[in-house]
Amino acid sequence: MSAAAYEGLASQIETRGFNTGTIESKIRALEIETPSWGYGDSGTRFGVFREPGAARGLRERLEDAAQVNNVTGACPSVAIHIPWDMVDDFADLAGQAREMGVRIGAVNPNVFQDKIYKYGSLCNVDPAVRATALDQILGCVDIMKQVDSDLLSLWFADGSNYPGQVNMRYRKQWMHEGLKTIHDALPQNARMLVEYKLFEPGFYHTDIADWGMACTFARRAGDNAQVLVDLGHHAQGVNIEHIIATLIDEDMLGGFHFNNRKSADDDLTIGSINPYEVFLIFCEILAAEKENLPSRPIAYMIDQSHIVKGKREAVIQSIMNIQTAYAKACLVDFDELDDARLRSNAVDCERALMAAYETNVQPLLQKIREDRGIGPDPITSHRATGYDERVAKERVGRLEGTGSWG
Amino acid sequence: MSAAAYEGLASQIETRGFNTGTIESKIRALEIETPSWGYGDSGTRFGVFREPGAARGLRERLEDAAQVNNVTGACPSVAIHIPWDMVDDFADLAGQAREMGVRIGAVNPNVFQDKIYKYGSLCNVDPAVRATALDQILGCVDIMKQVDSDLLSLWFADGSNYPGQVNMRYRKQWMHEGLKTIHDALPQNARMLVEYKLFEPGFYHTDIADWGMACTFARRAGDNAQVLVDLGHHAQGVNIEHIIATLIDEDMLGGFHFNNRKSADDDLTIGSINPYEVFLIFCEILAAEKENLPSRPIAYMIDQSHIVKGKREAVIQSIMNIQTAYAKACLVDFDELDDARLRSNAVDCERALMAAYETNVQPLLQKIREDRGIGPDPITSHRATGYDERVAKERVGRLEGTGSWG
Amino acid sequence: MSAAAYEGLASQIETRGFNTGTIESKIRALEIETPSWGYGDSGTRFGVFREPGAARGLRERLEDAAQVNNVTGACPSVAIHIPWDMVDDFADLAGQAREMGVRIGAVNPNVFQDKIYKYGSLCNVDPAVRATALDQILGCVDIMKQVDSDLLSLWFADGSNYPGQVNMRYRKQWMHEGLKTIHDALPQNARMLVEYKLFEPGFYHTDIADWGMACTFARRAGDNAQVLVDLGHHAQGVNIEHIIATLIDEDMLGGFHFNNRKSADDDLTIGSINPYEVFLIFCEILAAEKENLPSRPIAYMIDQSHIVKGKREAVIQSIMNIQTAYAKACLVDFDELDDARLRSNAVDCERALMAAYETNVQPLLQKIREDRGIGPDPITSHRATGYDERVAKERVGRLEGTGSWG
Amino acid sequence: MSAAAYEGLASQIETRGFNTGTIESKIRALEIETPSWGYGDSGTRFGVFREPGAARGLRERLEDAAQVNNVTGACPSVAIHIPWDMVDDFADLAGQAREMGVRIGAVNPNVFQDKIYKYGSLCNVDPAVRATALDQILGCVDIMKQVDSDLLSLWFADGSNYPGQVNMRYRKQWMHEGLKTIHDALPQNARMLVEYKLFEPGFYHTDIADWGMACTFARRAGDNAQVLVDLGHHAQGVNIEHIIATLIDEDMLGGFHFNNRKSADDDLTIGSINPYEVFLIFCEILAAEKENLPSRPIAYMIDQSHIVKGKREAVIQSIMNIQTAYAKACLVDFDELDDARLRSNAVDCERALMAAYETNVQPLLQKIREDRGIGPDPITSHRATGYDERVAKERVGRLEGTGSWG
Repeated sequence: MSAAAYEGLASQIETRGFNTGTIESKIRALEIETPSWGYGDSGTRFGVFREPGAARGLRERLEDAAQVNNVTGACPSVAIHIPWDMVDDFADLAGQAREMGVRIGAVNPNVFQDKIYKYGSLCNVDPAVRATALDQILGCVDIMKQVDSDLLSLWFADGSNYPGQVNMRYRKQWMHEGLKTIHDALPQNARMLVEYKLFEPGFYHTDIADWGMACTFARRAGDNAQVLVDLGHHAQGVNIEHIIATLIDEDMLGGFHFNNRKSADDDLTIGSINPYEVFLIFCEILAAEKENLPSRPIAYMIDQSHIVKGKREAVIQSIMNIQTAYAKACLVDFDELDDARLRSNAVDCERALMAAYETNVQPLLQKIREDRGIGPDPITSHRATGYDERVAKERVGRLEGTGSWG
Repeated sequence: MSAAAYEGLASQIETRGFNTGTIESKIRALEIETPSWGYGDSGTRFGVFREPGAARGLRERLEDAAQVNNVTGACPSVAIHIPWDMVDDFADLAGQAREMGVRIGAVNPNVFQDKIYKYGSLCNVDPAVRATALDQILGCVDIMKQVDSDLLSLWFADGSNYPGQVNMRYRKQWMHEGLKTIHDALPQNARMLVEYKLFEPGFYHTDIADWGMACTFARRAGDNAQVLVDLGHHAQGVNIEHIIATLIDEDMLGGFHFNNRKSADDDLTIGSINPYEVFLIFCEILAAEKENLPSRPIAYMIDQSHIVKGKREAVIQSIMNIQTAYAKACLVDFDELDDARLRSNAVDCERALMAAYETNVQPLLQKIREDRGIGPDPITSHRATGYDERVAKERVGRLEGTGSWG
Repeated sequence: MSAAAYEGLASQIETRGFNTGTIESKIRALEIETPSWGYGDSGTRFGVFREPGAARGLRERLEDAAQVNNVTGACPSVAIHIPWDMVDDFADLAGQAREMGVRIGAVNPNVFQDKIYKYGSLCNVDPAVRATALDQILGCVDIMKQVDSDLLSLWFADGSNYPGQVNMRYRKQWMHEGLKTIHDALPQNARMLVEYKLFEPGFYHTDIADWGMACTFARRAGDNAQVLVDLGHHAQGVNIEHIIATLIDEDMLGGFHFNNRKSADDDLTIGSINPYEVFLIFCEILAAEKENLPSRPIAYMIDQSHIVKGKREAVIQSIMNIQTAYAKACLVDFDELDDARLRSNAVDCERALMAAYETNVQPLLQKIREDRGIGPDPITSHRATGYDERVAKERVGRLEGTGSWG
Repeated sequence: MSAAAYEGLASQIETRGFNTGTIESKIRALEIETPSWGYGDSGTRFGVFREPGAARGLRERLEDAAQVNNVTGACPSVAIHIPWDMVDDFADLAGQAREMGVRIGAVNPNVFQDKIYKYGSLCNVDPAVRATALDQILGCVDIMKQVDSDLLSLWFADGSNYPGQVNMRYRKQWMHEGLKTIHDALPQNARMLVEYKLFEPGFYHTDIADWGMACTFARRAGDNAQVLVDLGHHAQGVNIEHIIATLIDEDMLGGFHFNNRKSADDDLTIGSINPYEVFLIFCEILAAEKENLPSRPIAYMIDQSHIVKGKREAVIQSIMNIQTAYAKACLVDFDELDDARLRSNAVDCERALMAAYETNVQPLLQKIREDRGIGPDPITSHRATGYDERVAKERVGRLEGTGSWG
């Protein structure tokens, strides 16, 4: 878009009483972590389609993340997944990452893929398996120290498939014990985030099924435990914005796994199914920030497993969708909204939100990118580099010793 | 059924290692509270169909409850709803109830039907409305003392219909304040139960939307606040048994509103849509009781608004469905189940449950009723009294000063 | 917004290869019918809050509809609901409507509120009730002739609350019979639209539960029967756009009842919960129109029962939300989309949609309104007339002989 | 259970007016097809856990099916899945099956696992892929002739993940074309069944998403096409019994894929989550059979992918659960039910169903098995053979040339 478009938008923003520079600063400050596993192959239970050029190991995944950061300027950190991203020398790897312009972010232990975890990890009825899972997670805490990460991100596949299959209360106790031990082993100033999920792979019950359970587990684990909200992990009809508001008020909102879903935990591109919901979530956060809530930073992370979109492009598009929703939320006039709320005037409340949501913020985002010295459209920039074609040629065969999905 | 049927069943029960007398004692001890509003007219938003003989005021509702208790022997207490059940002299009314063989149970304030509550009660943006709602509920606490009730049952219709319409965090604070005040005004040894509901009448958000929110509110209100689970108030796919197990472990399960649902909060007869779920809920409770959990009694209450079934018959059928599910759950061999769980053998876990669930417990329930001096089939007993025909003739016109649904 | 904003937008539109004039013509041609019942009181099963100034009878409802049409310029017809809108002289009433600048649109028989319909209308097990319902609907066909309406809009509350309660197959036959009779009585060139709904007021089953059933019924009724899609009548997770595409391909899409929902059939303002979905629905329709599909016009109708929003304002806001979604859909470059589809490039498909969806079309809509001689913002225009304040004073008490919700 | 238990039950059945021998004949006649793929490894998208002794190729799968048939006596046919079950000489294989006491049943083409099907099979935008898929399915029609199967069972993974990704209407046309060609190639007297599924692996849309679409496709394909209902493929809250009743009335119910689900397409053991629903489905079928509907036999097939249960035991348990539900449905007194329906007495309708559902039919099922010369409890019988232990030792390593899940 042209300078004229930017000028028009800036004028419109100023007319509505905002300072364009302030808005731009807020948008510039938004950083989103991308997941190493988002650059590798993934699939559904019906099959994994190998994509030419999919990253085959952590180094390649970091390269991809760096490429995405280069063209978006908004995602300098990368979440890793252990053991999929296991390497011999994490300190060396952290150095490599820095050279590429990125850093290691959250560490995500995988205690679900090994066959010993068929009936659970920290909640397994077998104490030996629980101990193994605990060891593996404590190993991840060690990795946090080596890569200087301050975030342990915990999702458990623990659950059951049939009524009666497990004693849900005993498993709750085992989960409490494990999380307490992990919490107390965390590096100083580090946090652990406890994720919840309604179902899958457990089809009858999952041991941490909703925000209430995650919050209960995190609270009892200790002060440095909070809740992680994955947008795809709720039952149909649940109001996620309300959960966000609740968690903020309880000071228990630790971070997000961004994605979108139509039916279940689809891991679709954030904003691709219901962009208004993403906007509403950011509205809750921005309103809270005006009151200096929450007390600790919210970790924004993408968690998507793209199947039909190109790996890098899908992540780039996700970043763009997030920026769009965030920029629009920055344009909500909360004073106007508060006034309408005081009058219980739902029509005017909706108008206050829509005045922001209907704004085309692309000229602003493009300007911010250009100020950063990157192209206005990250997808176009990415394509211009020929990156995808290059790695499709280079990444042939499977790398030794590198785990992966599927 | 015949004595032979009972003998056969008893023999089968004993063969499985149970003491029939012990089982019978447990079933005899099960009491279920019926709701005064279940005896009055009700409907959907599309219309209220007046039923001949529907109870028109509290005294008639108590008569109906007494009739239901007479033929079932299992529901000696009646929940009341204020202002629908408002009377001048509650002490006198409690006496009348005793004469009919029933007592007043939980008191349920209604702070949603008056037009001042259009935008909420304890969460209303208007402090004057919040104060009025609080007064009204405190009035119900007074009524508790007059009728010697130890249970205040709180459901709030508070919510919103549109994104942005309300400040969900501020409303959370107002709810905390209100509940704290109510809690501290409770009679000694009394409890208050906080109910949650996913949606309706608020269509975008309800201020207490799930068990996690109800638990958060109850915890902060004080030691005598617990959570009330209404079976119809969850999103589709949510595992209610798991929530029960969680609340028991947190010692926050205060009671139930029994009903069933297919689609939303339908208020259908408990056990009419998914009887197995009722059985599974009782399994969680009975397993916990073996470990002396929870610390306080669980209040079993029916909350149904029958539309197409006869008022009294629907409640009687509900009681029978609950007794059936409970009796079956009493026949679960938890040792066998534990053994299968230790082996992670889901096939045997299911067999342990099914051995109980597939048992026809009707001869046992009939025997228990006959021991009590009532007929073996409460529906038949009820019909034989000619009660419905009689009240259909007597209850003509609307009584003055008596509120009602619709 | 200013002329500059319009110029900027027009330039952007032209740059993307569209002719602004053509786009404007399409938007100008979009007409949406508003429902007479949307101007009266409504509520939930928990209560009906009377709104000062709510229309009390058909004449007042038409006045409101005329007011809405005056400020939006986009809704010259009004759906009526019999018997709520019953009058002695429909021809006279049609004349009055014309004087107000509106006309009568679809006729909607209500065969659910009378107590004889407690167990169904055309599907009632009692042949006498079926006959009465049929007569009542045929009476509506007569009214169609008197008001020169070419649309009979049929929604049935028929259903059941419990497994086993009814013989679903027999009821299907009775529905076929009734619809056939109605179809054959239609005025020449008129159509009947058959609506479906997943649940409510029937909680276990509704006799026309999904598009497939509605389509089966309509097909067997005859050539002039088609399907009516109410956006709030689907199960969670159902893809409505796909149903639209299917119905268009089968040439069975007769029209819409527009609204939005979060949880169930909430009847919220269209576009207030998921505006992107409205856009996607119009994308399907506009793509089909390029291929001269469907063969008959689609009836766009609002069906909302606003509770917390002002009656007139809610309808005006709905019209504006529809226009916004429609205008954006007009800006989809289907050639670009087709090209991306041919390449199975989901990233580019999404970009093609987003290029349109992210456009701020308000300057265009404002310009079109000003060209029509009405104010650019219908809500502001409406408020400036003082209409709401005036009718709140005038409409005191209930009118005799006028039916209504509740 | 003892002879006494059988005598007691038989007496109870006769007292209710049934002829025990007639009931036993109906139960004996119930045959359920088991799926070859149910005996191999399967998993979720989070991992496939290899089970010791899982069948590695078609011959081993047939052996397992034969073992299941030996201990249940109720599942003499086996559905096969191509190419997972591809062999060189199908005629020879059919002979081997016969020697084992089973026969080949429905043939299920898999046109989703090969990477060319990433964007669909018969609906692929690429005509070459469509042609390949068609060829592959026609190849299955050839296999039908070789194994003397009269059933082609068609499930398509075709769908999309994002709004706009595909032209849904064009894909509908391509599906029509493909299905028509397949239909016209069917062997004489053979049928093809068209399955539908709400979502997955397509997360935004699936080309055959509901019964209405499946019915539309089947109807246009020709007289020998019908609909296949998989119990796990519906949105939450959908009434499956109603769909069954509708399909029977339209004479379009071809068969079932039996399983159960809590959340999505979980493929859990039929009857493990909601046994009452299975009973209700059989009630619809048995009521229709009394009127000689439907005109062609319904194919009862299991489609489950057990993860935490042993492969053979899970299938055996499924058969037992189906027999239990079916036997109970046989004990519904439809005259009593019809009478209650005529009186619109929902209480009595429920009592009529519950009189059958609460019956413990195990003694009857055990007696039928013993009459067949097999053990009364198929799980116990199976364990006594030592089959699982034996094949766990024998089936080591992967067989060459045999496909499989995952």
